[in-house]
Amino acid sequence: MSFNHVAIIGLGLLGGSIGLAVQEHLPGVATSGFDADPEVRDKARELGLVGTVSENAADAVRGADLVILCVPVGAMGSAAAAVAPGLGENVVISDVGSSKLTVSRGLAAALPRHTIIPAHPVAGTEQSGPEAGFATLFHHRWCIITPSEDAPADKVEALSAFWEALGSTVEIMDAEHHDLVLAVTSHIPHLIAYTIVGTASDLEEVTRGEVIKYSAGGFRDFTRIAASDPTMWRDVFLNNREAVLEMMDRFLSDLALMREAIRAGDGETMFDLFSKTRAIRRRIVEQGQDDARPDFGRHDHE
Amino acid sequence: MSFNHVAIIGLGLLGGSIGLAVQEHLPGVATSGFDADPEVRDKARELGLVGTVSENAADAVRGADLVILCVPVGAMGSAAAAVAPGLGENVVISDVGSSKLTVSRGLAAALPRHTIIPAHPVAGTEQSGPEAGFATLFHHRWCIITPSEDAPADKVEALSAFWEALGSTVEIMDAEHHDLVLAVTSHIPHLIAYTIVGTASDLEEVTRGEVIKYSAGGFRDFTRIAASDPTMWRDVFLNNREAVLEMMDRFLSDLALMREAIRAGDGETMFDLFSKTRAIRRRIVEQGQDDARPDFGRHDHE
Repeated sequence: MSFNHVAIIGLGLLGGSIGLAVQEHLPGVATSGFDADPEVRDKARELGLVGTVSENAADAVRGADLVILCVPVGAMGSAAAAVAPGLGENVVISDVGSSKLTVSRGLAAALPRHTIIPAHPVAGTEQSGPEAGFATLFHHRWCIITPSEDAPADKVEALSAFWEALGSTVEIMDAEHHDLVLAVTSHIPHLIAYTIVGTASDLEEVTRGEVIKYSAGGFRDFTRIAASDPTMWRDVFLNNREAVLEMMDRFLSDLALMREAIRAGDGETMFDLFSKTRAIRRRIVEQGQDDARPDFGRHDHE
Repeated sequence: MSFNHVAIIGLGLLGGSIGLAVQEHLPGVATSGFDADPEVRDKARELGLVGTVSENAADAVRGADLVILCVPVGAMGSAAAAVAPGLGENVVISDVGSSKLTVSRGLAAALPRHTIIPAHPVAGTEQSGPEAGFATLFHHRWCIITPSEDAPADKVEALSAFWEALGSTVEIMDAEHHDLVLAVTSHIPHLIAYTIVGTASDLEEVTRGEVIKYSAGGFRDFTRIAASDPTMWRDVFLNNREAVLEMMDRFLSDLALMREAIRAGDGETMFDLFSKTRAIRRRIVEQGQDDARPDFGRHDHE
């Protein structure tokens, strides 16, 4: 089986990009969509993010065989309730949330009689809203699908094929493991970035103007991540609490070791850590997950 | 006054970039250089990083009116001792180190009869070595000069004009304040990045392969910073201990507040922090200190 009509609920960066990507890569597939914000709906129509933008969620999913919820993870339950009246019998409900265990449970509770196959495309930028989307967002990125044990195999395969058509490589994973992996590769990095940017902007000894001026020493990279959508990220931390706390405690304990090395003037411990982290960067670049050019190629444009 | 002959000691990313930048922006100024590593000297000759590459440090500085030490801050004292026999009477000794208080003291102790004007161009990439340099590295970047109170005004002005000719904007600052500012805008971000990359690569529950695969969720940005030169960064932390520990404790205390917000499910505290950090990013982009394109423009190349 494959999908003929994809409905997208939430037309921000992710939803908009899916709409554009389907139109580019799967031109035979119909697209419809809805966003709770009327201004976003207008903008989505203007930009052609999906074929049809409906005025309510239930209308948007009518006739769809795949519904993708692209709202912050805290809004998944209410989005599911809103689409319920329009859902057909054989539709697959999926999502793009950054945390999977609580989302899976919430969707299963909201739509107990439907097939739910949660997914998480590991892609995005620091921008948000309907104008931030683009068709190539999922190229060379991973999409993690976390089906429950009783999910129909043909539908899981169809969802995998859908994401592959959009340029992603699919990995099937247990929701709980997903949440632990993403806590370390995404959630903790965001929390750290938000926190250090907050720390820097509240100092008395160093002005905000100085922080901005001299940000090229490393700080500016953190500000990019800390410019991400606040609602989305609040919801991620509220919904992936256990894994985030576990990974944060590992990080804090490693940071305490580095603090002690600095205090004690222990250059060897520092050098050992600073040497081994280069290898990880090299592999990320080799595997196509980042740009090999220095400074992400930023200097090419000066 | 202005400089006619610039000698560069250490021909890695910074030293090599200065050599190339002088040749491009100040074609009338002679350049010479030395590196303790014979392979780097060969490479520097091949790439033409400076006009003449000498076989020892004292020869490299003979006849120079500006000597710039571009070695890790822990090697500044020995670099100063090595150039001493070749130094002329009126030469200005400067450097590019990321910490200024201990470096200033070390250089003053090593060369008590010479004019020392420390400087720090806030520019760089994660790459190192003679092949990493490029002439535009200092364009639109700040260069902080930290003269002592008795530094001759005409020489401070000449050094400022030199850096401006290379494309930078110069700021004069007290060495102690510099070290505090850079602790927050550069040193702590590097320490955090090195630490979280180390934490992620040592987990038992999440494999290193998974960390690499799913790094596009935020982690990959930290790996860029954590790929920086280990010797340089070890020396920064050994030489800016007080300021780094002070700023780290601010960060740790803010992180403890966020940890508690997550534990308690306090979405409002998170949302407040995640909203205010966007403003800093906006100002960094407005002031030309970072690329406005999402993901630093990385997606342009896919």
